[in-house]
Amino acid sequence: MQLQRNTMERRKFIEQTAIADAGFIIAKPFNNFSQDQQKIKDMSKNIPSRGYAAKDASGRLSPWTFERRPVGDNDILIDIKYASICHSDIHQMRGDWGKQPYPQVPGHEIVGIVAAVGKNVTKFKVGDRAGVGCMVDSCMECESCKHGEEHYCDHGATVFTYGAPDKTSPSGITQGGYSNNIVVRDHFAVHIPDHIKLEDAAPLLCAGITTYSPLMNARFKIGDKVGVAGIGGLGHLAVKLAVSKGAEVYAFTTSPSKVKDILAFGAKEVIVVDDISKLKPYRKKLDYMISTIPAQFDVAAYASTVKPFGHFTQVGMPVGFELTLSNIGLANTRVNFNASLIGGIPETQEVVHYCADNKIIPSIQVIKAQQINEAWTKVLNKEARYRFVIDAASF
Amino acid sequence: MQLQRNTMERRKFIEQTAIADAGFIIAKPFNNFSQDQQKIKDMSKNIPSRGYAAKDASGRLSPWTFERRPVGDNDILIDIKYASICHSDIHQMRGDWGKQPYPQVPGHEIVGIVAAVGKNVTKFKVGDRAGVGCMVDSCMECESCKHGEEHYCDHGATVFTYGAPDKTSPSGITQGGYSNNIVVRDHFAVHIPDHIKLEDAAPLLCAGITTYSPLMNARFKIGDKVGVAGIGGLGHLAVKLAVSKGAEVYAFTTSPSKVKDILAFGAKEVIVVDDISKLKPYRKKLDYMISTIPAQFDVAAYASTVKPFGHFTQVGMPVGFELTLSNIGLANTRVNFNASLIGGIPETQEVVHYCADNKIIPSIQVIKAQQINEAWTKVLNKEARYRFVIDAASF
Repeated sequence: MQLQRNTMERRKFIEQTAIADAGFIIAKPFNNFSQDQQKIKDMSKNIPSRGYAAKDASGRLSPWTFERRPVGDNDILIDIKYASICHSDIHQMRGDWGKQPYPQVPGHEIVGIVAAVGKNVTKFKVGDRAGVGCMVDSCMECESCKHGEEHYCDHGATVFTYGAPDKTSPSGITQGGYSNNIVVRDHFAVHIPDHIKLEDAAPLLCAGITTYSPLMNARFKIGDKVGVAGIGGLGHLAVKLAVSKGAEVYAFTTSPSKVKDILAFGAKEVIVVDDISKLKPYRKKLDYMISTIPAQFDVAAYASTVKPFGHFTQVGMPVGFELTLSNIGLANTRVNFNASLIGGIPETQEVVHYCADNKIIPSIQVIKAQQINEAWTKVLNKEARYRFVIDAASF
Repeated sequence: MQLQRNTMERRKFIEQTAIADAGFIIAKPFNNFSQDQQKIKDMSKNIPSRGYAAKDASGRLSPWTFERRPVGDNDILIDIKYASICHSDIHQMRGDWGKQPYPQVPGHEIVGIVAAVGKNVTKFKVGDRAGVGCMVDSCMECESCKHGEEHYCDHGATVFTYGAPDKTSPSGITQGGYSNNIVVRDHFAVHIPDHIKLEDAAPLLCAGITTYSPLMNARFKIGDKVGVAGIGGLGHLAVKLAVSKGAEVYAFTTSPSKVKDILAFGAKEVIVVDDISKLKPYRKKLDYMISTIPAQFDVAAYASTVKPFGHFTQVGMPVGFELTLSNIGLANTRVNFNASLIGGIPETQEVVHYCADNKIIPSIQVIKAQQINEAWTKVLNKEARYRFVIDAASF
């Protein structure tokens, strides 16, 4: 019904505003649009953008003005309201996952208001609340893409939100969400329902989907014991999601200062792993474990908390994406180790709705652009509580 | 029926030969006993043994005379007839898995004839054909041990066949099967049925069970596509076992010279992976894969041949037992990675019977003790076809 109504409104909107030859639709300035929007006179030209970029592998961010591609027939222009900080942003800007092109604007937890739509776009209308996560394009023709697993595109054509080669981008690469706007293929944006605040929705676009997808795939039952290792931006959402889905949650953190918070999130028990021996009492106790630890760690020791033949999912991505594990240690656990990467667009839409409907609200701290570098240091020092969200008005 | 008859014979045997105070039973010399057996005058004393040992981390073996513990109440003495060469022997003697005590006699694929049994032993009688694999003791009280998973002893009390600290051993460590006899707790020896040659049975004690256990655990169906990566001692048995169990087997080897053999083992297809790109055409094709590769390799690339959400088992143990994998690569495959370590005693007995009954015969080359070092070089050079079996009469 929602979809139908939107479609109807959309049709009416098209009839009223279609400009035949332009190939896209210019929004009449809404009250909630940024002032920049009104400066865009000719949208067949590049879109000017302001953001914060890393200029080199120091990973230090500073203001940068750049251009986005024009709004294509299948694109939407989003006036960004909030972008949140993911540990991945830091990893990539510092070259932890390979040499990077600079300047590069990070950010893949993006929410805002649709400011313009291309002529083929039916998914959004101007004024819609929209979010963008870790990817902005894929082949859309392969079996994976057709089945909503665009992040696993069979043709390897998944285009990630920042730092990916992109011929359509004036800077030659995709530029992320630490900026005041973004142009994205409509399919790769999701709707943000009205009953969640935009700033609360931002972390769902990566941290939310990255934990939701494997948790759903684990098919745990109500009352099952689910472990979450690493309670940062992703982990704290994993705790809230698993609790919401009926699990008895065991949270493993290295930060004693987080214990009270985590219990408030609904965890049954919080284990402070200041020494690997702290895992021993939990041997074979859990039905499933998800680890968000974004660094090397003792995989087999953590996996040993899962019952034999259970599953353990790694979503944190360490330096070089490489994880070294003890094969004999893992054999001793008999646990299945897998890794998971974000989630597809339909499931991203699902987690946003699920969190809005069930009041799964990320614990956030809103900051201004000028505080990003300081916030990054806090993320690295495990001082984030639990997601920094940048107010895009400050770019 | 077999068991009942043996038990009856055993009882009769005990009645005839029991020596009340000795605490064990001395065998009357059988024709097929080694001559050494007759030299053992007092079996409450240590058992003299001759074998080949590594004296240092060069891993070069040379003759060594040493002593085994006396035959305890629950022990059997096996007059070794054959011991085969596993890549693990080389890894461990060279210190690839940690610093080793020397001299150390390797060998954990051991077959022979029972020469004496302790007073509590009912499982074997003198003259029985018996085999010993990778372990010789465990706590026998924990849930894992009680359920036939002695290799995963909950108390960590699994004692491996060579190089493990062992207070009962005159040399302070367990000494393996490259020797003319072994004393072992009866539970950790298995029966070798008459319808398989002893030399053919030897490789089943490690290579056989190590591949059989995960293959059975994978629960593939008849006609399923099973991949085997690394076609050496373990891999060639994995191919034969999977074919026998009804799988369509895809064998992945780096040795073009093995192709003809592997097809003869019943593989549907043999892929020579001289370049990692050779795996691409097999993306998402297999229902399951087992890898016996005993070194670092591109786990995610091999796992990508398995269908999403399928399982991939690593049984080869690399240097340091450590395997480094690409977490993002594994995420892309959506495959579950697990590791497997040999198998329990009941399942070891099962694989020996299964192979004997179904004529799953390892492809072996029988050598003399004096050829061990040369054979080891061939194993390292991938020139074994496919298991070297040492004739213990030459020790």
